[in-house]
Amino acid sequence: MEEKFLELKSRLKEIADLNKAAGLLGWDQRVMMPPAGAAVRAEVLATLGKIAHEKFTSDEMGKLLGVLRSYEESLPYESDEASLIRVARRDYEKSVRVPASLRAEMSRASSQAQQVWVEARQKADFNHFLPMLERQIELRHRYIECFPPAEDPYDVLLDDYERDMRFNEVQGTFEQLKEGLVPLIQSIQENADRVSDAPLHGHFPVEQQKAFCLEVVKHFGFDPNSWRLDSTVHPFASSIATQDIRITTRYFEDFISPALFGSMHECGHGLYENGVSPSLERTLLARGASSGLHESQSRMWENLVGRSFPFWKYFYPRLQQTFPQQFAEVRLEEFYRAINKVQPSFIRVEADEATYNLHIILRFEIEWQMIRGEIALKHLPEVWNNRFQEYLGLSIPNDRLGVLQDIHWSMGLIGYFPTYSLGNIVSCQIWEKVLEAIPDLYEQFERGQFLPLREWLRENFHRYGRKFTPKETLQKVTGKAEIDVEPYLRYLKTKFSEIYGLN
Amino acid sequence: MEEKFLELKSRLKEIADLNKAAGLLGWDQRVMMPPAGAAVRAEVLATLGKIAHEKFTSDEMGKLLGVLRSYEESLPYESDEASLIRVARRDYEKSVRVPASLRAEMSRASSQAQQVWVEARQKADFNHFLPMLERQIELRHRYIECFPPAEDPYDVLLDDYERDMRFNEVQGTFEQLKEGLVPLIQSIQENADRVSDAPLHGHFPVEQQKAFCLEVVKHFGFDPNSWRLDSTVHPFASSIATQDIRITTRYFEDFISPALFGSMHECGHGLYENGVSPSLERTLLARGASSGLHESQSRMWENLVGRSFPFWKYFYPRLQQTFPQQFAEVRLEEFYRAINKVQPSFIRVEADEATYNLHIILRFEIEWQMIRGEIALKHLPEVWNNRFQEYLGLSIPNDRLGVLQDIHWSMGLIGYFPTYSLGNIVSCQIWEKVLEAIPDLYEQFERGQFLPLREWLRENFHRYGRKFTPKETLQKVTGKAEIDVEPYLRYLKTKFSEIYGLN
Repeated sequence: MEEKFLELKSRLKEIADLNKAAGLLGWDQRVMMPPAGAAVRAEVLATLGKIAHEKFTSDEMGKLLGVLRSYEESLPYESDEASLIRVARRDYEKSVRVPASLRAEMSRASSQAQQVWVEARQKADFNHFLPMLERQIELRHRYIECFPPAEDPYDVLLDDYERDMRFNEVQGTFEQLKEGLVPLIQSIQENADRVSDAPLHGHFPVEQQKAFCLEVVKHFGFDPNSWRLDSTVHPFASSIATQDIRITTRYFEDFISPALFGSMHECGHGLYENGVSPSLERTLLARGASSGLHESQSRMWENLVGRSFPFWKYFYPRLQQTFPQQFAEVRLEEFYRAINKVQPSFIRVEADEATYNLHIILRFEIEWQMIRGEIALKHLPEVWNNRFQEYLGLSIPNDRLGVLQDIHWSMGLIGYFPTYSLGNIVSCQIWEKVLEAIPDLYEQFERGQFLPLREWLRENFHRYGRKFTPKETLQKVTGKAEIDVEPYLRYLKTKFSEIYGLN
Repeated sequence: MEEKFLELKSRLKEIADLNKAAGLLGWDQRVMMPPAGAAVRAEVLATLGKIAHEKFTSDEMGKLLGVLRSYEESLPYESDEASLIRVARRDYEKSVRVPASLRAEMSRASSQAQQVWVEARQKADFNHFLPMLERQIELRHRYIECFPPAEDPYDVLLDDYERDMRFNEVQGTFEQLKEGLVPLIQSIQENADRVSDAPLHGHFPVEQQKAFCLEVVKHFGFDPNSWRLDSTVHPFASSIATQDIRITTRYFEDFISPALFGSMHECGHGLYENGVSPSLERTLLARGASSGLHESQSRMWENLVGRSFPFWKYFYPRLQQTFPQQFAEVRLEEFYRAINKVQPSFIRVEADEATYNLHIILRFEIEWQMIRGEIALKHLPEVWNNRFQEYLGLSIPNDRLGVLQDIHWSMGLIGYFPTYSLGNIVSCQIWEKVLEAIPDLYEQFERGQFLPLREWLRENFHRYGRKFTPKETLQKVTGKAEIDVEPYLRYLKTKFSEIYGLN
């Protein structure tokens, strides 16, 4: 039986290698590739994806997974071996349900729709994008039909990014979140003039920004021996191997925040992948457990660490040295308030910690209604704009700043958005555990020590990779499998009440 | 039948895609990858290689190639279609002769030997490398045995890099070359003090070198839309697609030549790949016809263009502007003589245009004797050093400057070295044709015009890719299928007689 397991493992490694190769090609495409390479690159990526899929859904794979059921049951649930068989079987069972023809159609439609979305966004013309969106919704329905009926059809989509998560649970969570957030943001708005972000705008030469970002992430655990930091248009993190982590950021000469917090954010993703146990390398377990848990890590390093006062107590003098002209006259407290300014704005990726979630809730509600057919797609801008006014108090001037701003729907990513806010929520559930385990955590930050935090996360969370379901993983890290919005709301209320002098 | 052809083509594209993916992974490994990524990278590359090999040597592929024989014969020999079937069949017939087990052993031995070679070279300790070399020679014998007996066993190895080339032909050519070169180099040596390369040494900041190199290669046809230029330790060129060409160079702050001529050299390789007909993209025909023909292009742009007087008549004022302190007092004629200084030295890759070939002839003779078993491998340093004294008049102080300097033998590349000098020779055969076709070529250079040369090469040479054998290709370009050393000797004699004032 062990021989069969070794055969399974060797087949899975081959597939993991194909996916890792595709990962590098994708990184290169976004960071290095000369533009004219795009056409052939798309073909090469399609070929790698096709071969990996064929190998994974082969009859031999199905037989092996069947034969290995008793072997799996003879092993401890938590062992690498049992976990590999278990997760591979689940992935296999999902994969074989979707016909290759539908998969190919989805992939083609996604490429085409992305292209059209770019044009539509440039022209701020929703109607140009509409037929593509209609097609994406139709394809999602065909995808959903491949699976047994769910309580809510949206659950099938959500499951691809956040296994076992259901629409109902997200909705309940987001209702609570909204209830807490709306009055908080309103109070902040009434005292908006108490915080200014003017110090963050000015002149910041790219080379110095780069050096400073690198210094920060090195304190977090970025090691030039196994990491890279590059610049790109739409920043992301990519794990080519647990010891080959590529993060990216983008630099604006007149605004320091995107590079600074962007690189901490991507470093958080990178630390999760980098912390996966080496014993899982080259298997489908060698990555984060879900989109939400991944986002909990990026948001943790970006916000709970990178926008905290103790962090800047250590780093602000260094930032002042790097940009003496810009910050000589700005006090630490002023700077800290500037980076934590809350202000409703049009673009999600530029939103502050508090209003960000309203952007997500809006998208979640709308995409759920789209899947249920409760929104006539041609009226989508209207629906978007009305709800935006309601949640964020701003009226959208054009679709580029509204419904066309995100790439996700053009790629067919429906069910993905909620994981961003779930990540925020979970990050605070984990953070409370961290503070119990490391009571002097903030004193460590003040001394520039971030590795004890990284080590705790690695030991109690990251090393599991994808061995367990997201809920099992959360249970292991926090002792509780359920999403709990309270720690996050407490964190936001405490932090912003202090900054804005609210009661 | 056409359906069968489309099936063949689709299978070959899949394999080409796997090889292109591997090509990008290889480029990344040498240019971008953090060092700790090496272990997984090796596995991923092995997997891609294995899958590509399995697909190419599959029974289905054999059957398709068999069935398509009559279709091929019904098509014009020069058509893309007939060429694809013909070359695929030949590659297939060679591939299936070598058992997968031997291929895997060769690949493992090569990885291991490269590692040991690095250590041995560092320590200048040949004995540390000896067991690896013995293993490589043994594996080459096992490889040779997979093929029908050749006139000379070395022919089997040579054929992998220079199809249809035979030991006898190379030996005859190299004898002629030696006969011409040895007295020329001797005369130069007697007048060595007439040329100084002092102006090339000094202080050259990397950023300025980079900008100047880029300006030069842009004149040759480098287009940022479809090319990249990066720096690396051991420069090379790589074609990820005909419209995605990656070249590399290396910069020394105290010596301008390596970056300057290195980037022109790699640009020459890149132009060949970039010029292959787009109709051959994603097939095994979308690359250069042989190592020798490839080298003819790199050496042409590096030497026949880049070390010519007309080239510098245009570019030297620009170089003076880039490095005013360094070159203000150096006249054009002096600079031209400096970059053409001939001086026997230990390291092949640093050798000048004339002595370079003696380095190659020495390696060719030695590796042929190693394969024939005429050299006891443990005495290799002695053999090397004696012959080096004889050919280049220098005594080797240690094996790092001698037999351990090149990576090739550790990788199992035996039969590769001669293609470097064949490239030199062929470059001059082609050059004579170029001069017939573009009589005012040098006047164009003086005006900074290099694109007519590139266009001629593209139209008369590059676009064929690998459709024809090296000899067929040479025939097409020059009207003559045979290697002819005379144009090259004429070129060297004329050039250096003038520079050194010889009779």
